[in-house]
Amino acid sequence: MNPPTGVPSASRDRSRPVFHPWSAQGAARQVRVDGAAGCWFWDRDGNRWLDLHSQLGNLHLGHQHPVLVEAVGAQAARLCTLAPSYGYEVRDEAARLILDTMPDAMRSVLFTNGGADANEHALRMARLVTGRPKVLAAHRSYHGATDGAMAVTGDPRRWSAEPPGSRTVRFFGPYLYRSEFHATTAEEECERALRHLRRLIGYEGPETVAAIILEPVVGSNGVLVPPPGYLPGVRELCDEFGILLIADEVMTGFGRCGAWFAGDLHDVVPDLLTFAKGVNSGYVPMGGVAVGERVAAYFEDRPYPGGLTYSGHPLACASAVASIGVLRDDKLVERAELLGRTVLGPSLARLAQRVPVVGEVRGVGLAWAIELVSDRDSREPLAPYAAPGPLAPPMAQLLAACRERGVWPLVAANRVHLLPPLIITETELERGIEAVADALTAVFGGHRRVTTGPTGVTT
Amino acid sequence: MNPPTGVPSASRDRSRPVFHPWSAQGAARQVRVDGAAGCWFWDRDGNRWLDLHSQLGNLHLGHQHPVLVEAVGAQAARLCTLAPSYGYEVRDEAARLILDTMPDAMRSVLFTNGGADANEHALRMARLVTGRPKVLAAHRSYHGATDGAMAVTGDPRRWSAEPPGSRTVRFFGPYLYRSEFHATTAEEECERALRHLRRLIGYEGPETVAAIILEPVVGSNGVLVPPPGYLPGVRELCDEFGILLIADEVMTGFGRCGAWFAGDLHDVVPDLLTFAKGVNSGYVPMGGVAVGERVAAYFEDRPYPGGLTYSGHPLACASAVASIGVLRDDKLVERAELLGRTVLGPSLARLAQRVPVVGEVRGVGLAWAIELVSDRDSREPLAPYAAPGPLAPPMAQLLAACRERGVWPLVAANRVHLLPPLIITETELERGIEAVADALTAVFGGHRRVTTGPTGVTT
Repeated sequence: MNPPTGVPSASRDRSRPVFHPWSAQGAARQVRVDGAAGCWFWDRDGNRWLDLHSQLGNLHLGHQHPVLVEAVGAQAARLCTLAPSYGYEVRDEAARLILDTMPDAMRSVLFTNGGADANEHALRMARLVTGRPKVLAAHRSYHGATDGAMAVTGDPRRWSAEPPGSRTVRFFGPYLYRSEFHATTAEEECERALRHLRRLIGYEGPETVAAIILEPVVGSNGVLVPPPGYLPGVRELCDEFGILLIADEVMTGFGRCGAWFAGDLHDVVPDLLTFAKGVNSGYVPMGGVAVGERVAAYFEDRPYPGGLTYSGHPLACASAVASIGVLRDDKLVERAELLGRTVLGPSLARLAQRVPVVGEVRGVGLAWAIELVSDRDSREPLAPYAAPGPLAPPMAQLLAACRERGVWPLVAANRVHLLPPLIITETELERGIEAVADALTAVFGGHRRVTTGPTGVTT
Repeated sequence: MNPPTGVPSASRDRSRPVFHPWSAQGAARQVRVDGAAGCWFWDRDGNRWLDLHSQLGNLHLGHQHPVLVEAVGAQAARLCTLAPSYGYEVRDEAARLILDTMPDAMRSVLFTNGGADANEHALRMARLVTGRPKVLAAHRSYHGATDGAMAVTGDPRRWSAEPPGSRTVRFFGPYLYRSEFHATTAEEECERALRHLRRLIGYEGPETVAAIILEPVVGSNGVLVPPPGYLPGVRELCDEFGILLIADEVMTGFGRCGAWFAGDLHDVVPDLLTFAKGVNSGYVPMGGVAVGERVAAYFEDRPYPGGLTYSGHPLACASAVASIGVLRDDKLVERAELLGRTVLGPSLARLAQRVPVVGEVRGVGLAWAIELVSDRDSREPLAPYAAPGPLAPPMAQLLAACRERGVWPLVAANRVHLLPPLIITETELERGIEAVADALTAVFGGHRRVTTGPTGVTT
């Protein structure tokens, strides 16, 4: 028998009530956030940090953007929740606006609660439409933490979490700095990665492959930008063998890479496009699958076996409508392209020259990574590519040094990721890069200053 | 090459921009909702409906409850979003309040976006903690539509969506009206269902079974209330064999069944308890896993391999804090018990006597089902237990007849489900039952009036 529930009990230990993702609970040390605005967040002790990773890559419009706050508040006053079976204006409007940012071939949007379940539904659709079991997915990829999404994830987070029998076959994507194909140029890497994929399809049997799922720019596994011909080559392979292409644009979408979607950079149109994060800066949990012509036609007269209670949630839809409006009105997609090309890219290139521990910097738009090595010739990673757990000591020191300097990038394995909000000013961005450079040299040695040159960006 | 994206194009068909869950897209006919308040929602043509199913069972506090609307608006103005790795006051507060509604043994809360991913993470935890692969799950159960949740779902929605290799073994739970065990009394059904479960564990090998997952009252598969000794018996089996008990309280939690959780009705404490819906009436997408002692101890010094961007979302947490406050202050859990016992239950019992097509009515608190049969002796279902698709014609007629009378229950297979908001007045509830009774007799014949007797409920 239990004591009565529903009332607090003095005997209960409630000092650590939140179970932390990806962590040992006893080791979880947290900064307690007190507030946030724009690109900044702070604690109660007066510490302030410039957010150089947009929280988890979702905060395209920064914290507490007045247009989004207003939209959420107004919709809350109007109607907070509504089951997906009913039509509702802001739900249609959000879907329409989202489709308007995408290639014409995208026909409709299945709304989900986030990126993982978006990928779950995209994979299910692909298997049903093709009648084929297998999915090809890349090593060094992340597609979410539910079972279906974990089954196609290709990074250490899957090691103790992926389900068996997942019918996933993993391939190697292009990654010239650590080429699986011993390539020395981008052209060679592209050509060899495509040959590898074609061979794999042949070995697996094209008639058994429902889909290829990929991040058009690999996100949390290192900001891997594909060489120019790669994505069109994958699209051609898909067409040749009747395979569906699923573009996971959860991290890359809505302007992050200097285009509405990273696939746009290569004029590649997927059959299914999954999104979350930047669609509404995460102000309300939301994700979705944009459904292309072939899939839409299949489900025109066949029931789709999937759904969820909060599909097309009114608050989430209202925030998406507002967010897309701001991205357009303030030309933030164009801004991401310009800031990446003229500020972030060049600054990081100079940083790479001056800090010996930097092996490579790479990126596009406002998505960049710094890869650290213990030796530039051997390219030995400064820290291992490891399963969930604490950072390697030198990387933990680096993160601490960044935090002491008032900036908060993402630090993972042997890399620093810089994905600032799209609203960041040129001044904030330059100061942020200075601070990261300063932290790098303080921990690992090298020249301290990374002067930024004149650019055409107005801040 | 595509036309430029980001701007509307006249050539695009955007007339049906939303992809509808569980539906053939061409057949989706929708009522377009214009607004909602309390237990009512309406369209632009002046039609109003009393919501007898709380949307998808989530709307415990009705639409636009002023305390929740205020809480969402206030939190939106303060801080909309924050990555899960940071500490934040309303996140801790929500976790604490949620734990306070639960048995003492629940230690912490992993927040998710909904019920499906809550079950995903509970299943993963159970497998990691026990080191065992299999999970026992019930036929006639629903646990969500992502792959891991679908793998343990036991209803037709899984038929074309469940992943292979799911390591799920399905058992039959108690369901006296259609007993798998040829029982004729509740005691007999309980004893035989437990013997069946024990035998199954023996055949599968206790050392291979990580968890038993069940809905303490089966929800969307028919509001199946277990006989008194069943859940304690399952708990004992779990303890005997070192198996974890996962209670899926997504639909039954937060007062729906006249107790904070349906397990409380039997003093049964699970090892993992999953929730969503009633935690915040769905005002912001949210779910979670409450983690019991054994699981908490395991992950104290081992990293948990799972997470999600919107875990512990501030807006969702603020709405949960407000919602639990209202449930307590207005004593709505007690009210659900009283209304079920004195109004809904007795009225449905009278309805069953007067409408020949009613085979059984059953329920607890404010969760009830009416099961329809073509013949009371053979108990032949009036409509088949079927995969996703349109309702059978007589059931579609019944739903239409309900809608014409201004009430909207859930109609599924051969059943009508009544899960009204916990704030429903006695008058609304009585009128709602009258309307359903009227619709039933209009479509299927029988006596029209279902007089409700005097009760002690103040409305």
